[in-house]
Amino acid sequence: MTMYDLIEKKKRGIELSKEEIEFIVYGYTDGSIPDYQMSSFLMAVWFNGMNKEETYHLTMSMMNSGEVLDLSKINGIKVDKHSTGGVGDKTTLILGPIVAALGIPVAKLSGRGLGHTGGTIDKLESIPGFNTSVETEDFIGQVNDINIAVAGQTSNLAPADKKIYALRDVTATVDNISLIASSIMSKKLASGADAIVLDVKCGSGAFMKNEDDALALAKEMVDIGKSAGKDIVALVTDMDEPLGRYVGNSLEVYEAVLCLMGQGDKKLMDISKALAAHMVVNAKENIDIKEAYIQVEEAIESGAALKKMVEFVARQGGDVGYILNPELLPKGDVVIEYKAKTDGYVKAIQAETVGKACLVLGGGRRTKEDVINSSVGLFLNKKKGEKVKAGEAVVTIYAESEAKAKEALALLDDAYEFIAEEIVIDGDIIKYVV
Amino acid sequence: MTMYDLIEKKKRGIELSKEEIEFIVYGYTDGSIPDYQMSSFLMAVWFNGMNKEETYHLTMSMMNSGEVLDLSKINGIKVDKHSTGGVGDKTTLILGPIVAALGIPVAKLSGRGLGHTGGTIDKLESIPGFNTSVETEDFIGQVNDINIAVAGQTSNLAPADKKIYALRDVTATVDNISLIASSIMSKKLASGADAIVLDVKCGSGAFMKNEDDALALAKEMVDIGKSAGKDIVALVTDMDEPLGRYVGNSLEVYEAVLCLMGQGDKKLMDISKALAAHMVVNAKENIDIKEAYIQVEEAIESGAALKKMVEFVARQGGDVGYILNPELLPKGDVVIEYKAKTDGYVKAIQAETVGKACLVLGGGRRTKEDVINSSVGLFLNKKKGEKVKAGEAVVTIYAESEAKAKEALALLDDAYEFIAEEIVIDGDIIKYVV
Repeated sequence: MTMYDLIEKKKRGIELSKEEIEFIVYGYTDGSIPDYQMSSFLMAVWFNGMNKEETYHLTMSMMNSGEVLDLSKINGIKVDKHSTGGVGDKTTLILGPIVAALGIPVAKLSGRGLGHTGGTIDKLESIPGFNTSVETEDFIGQVNDINIAVAGQTSNLAPADKKIYALRDVTATVDNISLIASSIMSKKLASGADAIVLDVKCGSGAFMKNEDDALALAKEMVDIGKSAGKDIVALVTDMDEPLGRYVGNSLEVYEAVLCLMGQGDKKLMDISKALAAHMVVNAKENIDIKEAYIQVEEAIESGAALKKMVEFVARQGGDVGYILNPELLPKGDVVIEYKAKTDGYVKAIQAETVGKACLVLGGGRRTKEDVINSSVGLFLNKKKGEKVKAGEAVVTIYAESEAKAKEALALLDDAYEFIAEEIVIDGDIIKYVV
Repeated sequence: MTMYDLIEKKKRGIELSKEEIEFIVYGYTDGSIPDYQMSSFLMAVWFNGMNKEETYHLTMSMMNSGEVLDLSKINGIKVDKHSTGGVGDKTTLILGPIVAALGIPVAKLSGRGLGHTGGTIDKLESIPGFNTSVETEDFIGQVNDINIAVAGQTSNLAPADKKIYALRDVTATVDNISLIASSIMSKKLASGADAIVLDVKCGSGAFMKNEDDALALAKEMVDIGKSAGKDIVALVTDMDEPLGRYVGNSLEVYEAVLCLMGQGDKKLMDISKALAAHMVVNAKENIDIKEAYIQVEEAIESGAALKKMVEFVARQGGDVGYILNPELLPKGDVVIEYKAKTDGYVKAIQAETVGKACLVLGGGRRTKEDVINSSVGLFLNKKKGEKVKAGEAVVTIYAESEAKAKEALALLDDAYEFIAEEIVIDGDIIKYVV
């Protein structure tokens, strides 16, 4: 078997076997297959695609290229949730405590933010004292004790994916459904959960700009998960405007706590409850989605979910004072408002551009080495379909300097689009359940 | 402009401009564009192709990446001939002296053989004393004096093509018409001729296995040549069996001399005369192909072509005794015959396998570093359609050792196919003139 022959095969549209795909993935990871052959192969995949079996083998071999977490010492069915990445997405901080409060073990490995999208780990670290570097043994013990632990991903999770993604990123081979699905699923499956709930974003702030593409990706990932023997469900959800009203690390923790107090933005609550309910269905026996929703609602209304959040933060060393009194969470000192120029309605908000505004404030990373300022961010007073009056604050910017605030201001001006007449807004954030 | 964007563009099927193609070719040649981006781009070209303009710009930028020979000091219209490579192809050794004898300057840069195909330079070097390393000034002087010079290609001819071809060779991106045509034409145009006659081989021994592909390649190269302002014609010719009856370096010189003596194999004479006649048409004013054929025939019959061969060999330091008495040319000491097992007819001869038989004898190179033995080779007593009797010699093998001869014997057994009944053979070696 030679890499040359396998490139040729994929180029001709011939299906590759499990052994052939393993040869490619392991060979590329150990360096015996050079970059230039791999990139040529990836471009052939871009054109000819991979079928269901090939995509599954690619996922599994990338998963097996590194450590695969063994969570068998955690009692019960471990459910994981994964989002394909959006702006203002703090659902993990909301549904984690809800699901844990319902007695379901949540053992979650999360990533840091890069570019215009944030990361759960960064958000949690904005709580003073919160520790995201948890050893595996402590991590398992914590889940057994309080049903929830969230830690940073270890560097040895699916190293093949890491290396292949870096190459795709510079050779214009990122945008292929099989490659995207296998990349996400290899890491997800390596994280060791029994059941998985996927949140596939679509819209201006997501990688998938339209519903068809997002749906195709969702189906592909569900297929992989099922082939791997997991209980898996995917929700295709709207990311055409930022999720919720806060963007920025400590501001998003603030909004998550509001949600757990039952005072959250409606769409953010809708998606958090939906994802949580599907996690409950996957983890508990003999429960339907309707009953799961009821339990989720109860966990919020009873205060059990908020109590679990406090317990979780305390266990990982965070100062619970900030959860009990979320208004104490740090906010950037320089406060500037982005104001409406005329009366009208918000027609659209480019989520990606809002994410970039947070990035220029210092709330995100351009490169992995960047240090973020967790206190900066944005409060979106006005969202899609809402009425604005001339001079009224549309967005409140929390910055570390006036210069950066002004940079963000310019981006917000690009992000927001207004219209004179009232428009009908699709209120459903959940587009499909796969 | 970034290479990433240009890969993306080609992937999407958008036409690249002259400036964009130059950016890629010069960037890859100077090392600022890495292999992995270039191979990804080449695979996108494999799938989406290049249109006529893109192919022309690719050719010209590869040509301009190195030295472009200035043959303006040679009087008259310089005509060059190029073959896409075959087995037993010694036409340059035949038509060169014919055309030169007709007063047309032949300034030819040739390559060495690699794999199963031979090279003109290797063949000429089998003549004791023959020197193929000629300085440009001497080369030009020789053409002005005697109308013919053949030298090895300088290493700085189209270096971009050299680097790109080496990458294509290991990334399964060789077999694309635009890439093949531009690769050949960039070197050809850099060689400085005014007019070009192309010999595009098709069949089992050629890169192009069928006539349609060969015709498409011929058209593509003619288009490029015309865009570059050259008089150019392409002949699509048969390479379904080896050309002529001798394969091997000194054996092919022997056969070429036989042809110049008017005693050559019919098909080999047909193709040599056709190519020569088209060179004459391109080089001389007011002459049609019919008249050109008559002049070519006369050059052979009068002995002028043979006389020119002697003059040419002498001028480049070769021992003319071997031309005047070609049977003196070295032949491998170990002579073994491949014999027919039963009575019948030759149905087919896989030219590529015959080429490989010559290779295992030591008459060709597996890698550029291999040293060849110019005395070894094969005499094909029987060619396609010819009658054989059981026990009769089909091929005579000239080897340096019995072991190698036996290896060649096994390959010949694969190469030859026999049939009991007589079959009708297409006698035309010229398939198309483009």
